[in-house]
Amino acid sequence: MSAGWFRRRFLPGGPLPAPRPPRPRASPVPYRRPRFLRGSGSGPGTADAPRRPDARPVRSPARGRALPWNAGYAEIINAEKSEFNEDQAACGQLCIGRCEFGAEEDREWLTLCPEEFLTGHYWALFDGHGGPAAAILAANTLHSCLRRQLEAVVEGMVATRPPMHLSGHCVCPSDPQFVEEKGIRAEDLVIGALESAFQECDEVIGRELEASGQVGGCTALVAVSLQGKLYVANAGDSRAILVRKDEVRPLSSEFTPETERQRIQQLAFVYPELLAGEFTRLEFPRRLKGDDLGQKVLFRDHHMRGWSYKCVEKSDLKYPLIHGQGRQARLLGTLAVSRGLGDHQLRVLDTNIQLKPFLLSVPQVTVLDVDQLELQEEDVVVMATDGLWDVLSNEQVARLVRSFLPGNREDPHRFSELAQTLIHSTQGKDDGPTGDGQVSYDDISVFVIPLHSQGQRSGGH
Amino acid sequence: MSAGWFRRRFLPGGPLPAPRPPRPRASPVPYRRPRFLRGSGSGPGTADAPRRPDARPVRSPARGRALPWNAGYAEIINAEKSEFNEDQAACGQLCIGRCEFGAEEDREWLTLCPEEFLTGHYWALFDGHGGPAAAILAANTLHSCLRRQLEAVVEGMVATRPPMHLSGHCVCPSDPQFVEEKGIRAEDLVIGALESAFQECDEVIGRELEASGQVGGCTALVAVSLQGKLYVANAGDSRAILVRKDEVRPLSSEFTPETERQRIQQLAFVYPELLAGEFTRLEFPRRLKGDDLGQKVLFRDHHMRGWSYKCVEKSDLKYPLIHGQGRQARLLGTLAVSRGLGDHQLRVLDTNIQLKPFLLSVPQVTVLDVDQLELQEEDVVVMATDGLWDVLSNEQVARLVRSFLPGNREDPHRFSELAQTLIHSTQGKDDGPTGDGQVSYDDISVFVIPLHSQGQRSGGH
Repeated sequence: MSAGWFRRRFLPGGPLPAPRPPRPRASPVPYRRPRFLRGSGSGPGTADAPRRPDARPVRSPARGRALPWNAGYAEIINAEKSEFNEDQAACGQLCIGRCEFGAEEDREWLTLCPEEFLTGHYWALFDGHGGPAAAILAANTLHSCLRRQLEAVVEGMVATRPPMHLSGHCVCPSDPQFVEEKGIRAEDLVIGALESAFQECDEVIGRELEASGQVGGCTALVAVSLQGKLYVANAGDSRAILVRKDEVRPLSSEFTPETERQRIQQLAFVYPELLAGEFTRLEFPRRLKGDDLGQKVLFRDHHMRGWSYKCVEKSDLKYPLIHGQGRQARLLGTLAVSRGLGDHQLRVLDTNIQLKPFLLSVPQVTVLDVDQLELQEEDVVVMATDGLWDVLSNEQVARLVRSFLPGNREDPHRFSELAQTLIHSTQGKDDGPTGDGQVSYDDISVFVIPLHSQGQRSGGH
Repeated sequence: MSAGWFRRRFLPGGPLPAPRPPRPRASPVPYRRPRFLRGSGSGPGTADAPRRPDARPVRSPARGRALPWNAGYAEIINAEKSEFNEDQAACGQLCIGRCEFGAEEDREWLTLCPEEFLTGHYWALFDGHGGPAAAILAANTLHSCLRRQLEAVVEGMVATRPPMHLSGHCVCPSDPQFVEEKGIRAEDLVIGALESAFQECDEVIGRELEASGQVGGCTALVAVSLQGKLYVANAGDSRAILVRKDEVRPLSSEFTPETERQRIQQLAFVYPELLAGEFTRLEFPRRLKGDDLGQKVLFRDHHMRGWSYKCVEKSDLKYPLIHGQGRQARLLGTLAVSRGLGDHQLRVLDTNIQLKPFLLSVPQVTVLDVDQLELQEEDVVVMATDGLWDVLSNEQVARLVRSFLPGNREDPHRFSELAQTLIHSTQGKDDGPTGDGQVSYDDISVFVIPLHSQGQRSGGH
């Protein structure tokens, strides 16, 4: 994503630079600082965090203890767009203690009784833009925010049904409207915790970047395996899919200026001052110019999914709030995503117009009931940043998974090798199973998560 | 829908009255003023419009001319909730003339050359509340609004691809950002016309009701067959489904305070003054009371799909913006739907708090590509108001369709008979194919639209 962001930011409106030629095929691993997160005993970690003075040391989501960890496999490459990799990853075991909401004595209790109450697994990909700072902070912070949010509701999560009152206090009046409760499930609390964790992490990033004088933002794609379910939380344009023998199922959807057009236009309709008179909220099939004045042209406003015609007025000639299409679509001419973390300081070039009010840090969360699947050994979840999906479709990735795994059953590193294979398939090699030799010039990060072992390992407490 | 609305409006917060017992089975058609819209030469019309002084005469969507019409079959019953039926229906042939957008000479041209340029079919169901006035106005008006909106874009609809400029004027500058156009399809113009027609009709209803000192609102479900496609536009809690031999496909989704919770809470977050300090925006599993103060209870805000816990403050004890669940969910304690037409004057009982800002008149439009289906003779679309769907599931309706039609192939009125059968299945008869004897006490309207004849007839120009 970030490549496009840079291109558009410094070449607004201009043609894109010619793509770089594919790397020579003789060099099998020609990328700078690739790093493989293999689980075999190495403990959880953050991938490819550059050694910058401001980068925090890699911390484990499991309170710094080295825990057995071999459930997720990743490969990350740096496309050499920038000195430091803007893609960041984190994974680890998620250990949730028993902790009552906000009470001082609980923190004491936690210190005295540090054993885990509920354990799960955590994988996260962050695709930065405007520098790696936000992605590094997110990789170092989000799991802690999530653990805290989960600990605040864990008593409800382990109940057969989360109680209305966390304290167990119950009101039973005679008036039925005060008695009947909506049926809320444990998974609703995990979804709520993920939503709150993203927001908390966004606030932390905002404060840290401001304090250190840095800038930037990142997308965030998180998978959490907990109590027999896999939760996928997405804010941005990364993607996770489930690949099984006979099924390919998207587990996330992308949030871009195009997919969130109506929300973004609606906000500009409610708060027109956000555009400072420099942009038009309306969408047209292309940028309008003086010759179009007075013509009846196609347009869409915030309440419309269809198109209509209108007479072009002078204000319609302004730069569009959302411009371009597909990978080139930009919010305020600047940003290619509409959800993510950071970007608190981001402004439209040479103006005071802020991007942040249009960005949401709230993820969309989907739930996969792993315990209900009849899992096969080669059922996997593939998580990857947009660089992969620009070049490979869900079906192409599924074909690569299905052609690779059965022939490598004895290889203990086969999921890692598969992650490598997926990335290599985006580097213009036309002899792979996809056979079309498409090339990605973006940073790419991939997790391959085998569900079979997940189903066996996760979920207990 | 309206039954619930009345109940809750006059008994706020109280228990619902006991349901009326089912009608005696010996009386096969015991309802007041049922009316069957059979197509055999009777021409288009509006069903069951009461003879009120303010009710306009029934007009045909086809500019008042009697046209051959036998493509839609409806049955409407009045559940005797009110003197006049709050359910209204309209159907007819939709004849769209060639008309340039807004120009004076076009109206002249239309008068001189009145022949149709494009024809389609139109079916609409309106479920009123607070009286039948809005539903009657909608049944008499919406098709005219739609015809007008379609005539404004018809030149674009019949082009291979709708032109950016309706006038055909083309700008070809050298800068690529002014050249590349988004690919917009003819169906996007029809969707836009439906969206605009609903809004226009809503404005007409607002003006007419104000001028005549009447009140009320209605839901609207519209199907339009045009150029080989079926467009289903829905604002409210009616529903349309496609029933085929091996497939049941929803063609609409319902808009209620529950399904639109986040949009409604978001609006109250942006404009808290809309609640006048009388309601809380937050959702809780049940209404809170004094005993809950200071407790940690489950809640949801506008940005949350999941649930979390919070300490109850005094402001949380206010009546919730959305209260109740399922069929009992109410917006501001008053209304069971969140989209529709009318309600411009509707206020929360004994307050000045308006409902209208929370209601959308914009429909959601889905498109069924009829030409791409391999149609069988018994493929139908069933459109019905919520009274039917309260009692029968999509699958139950499909079973009734599949068991009824094959045995009645020779009956020229079989689609009408099927509409009757569907309604009779909601009146507590336990000997029908559904066998569960559920009872609906709401007005019910049903259209059964055979697609096979549609596919053969519609689409030309």
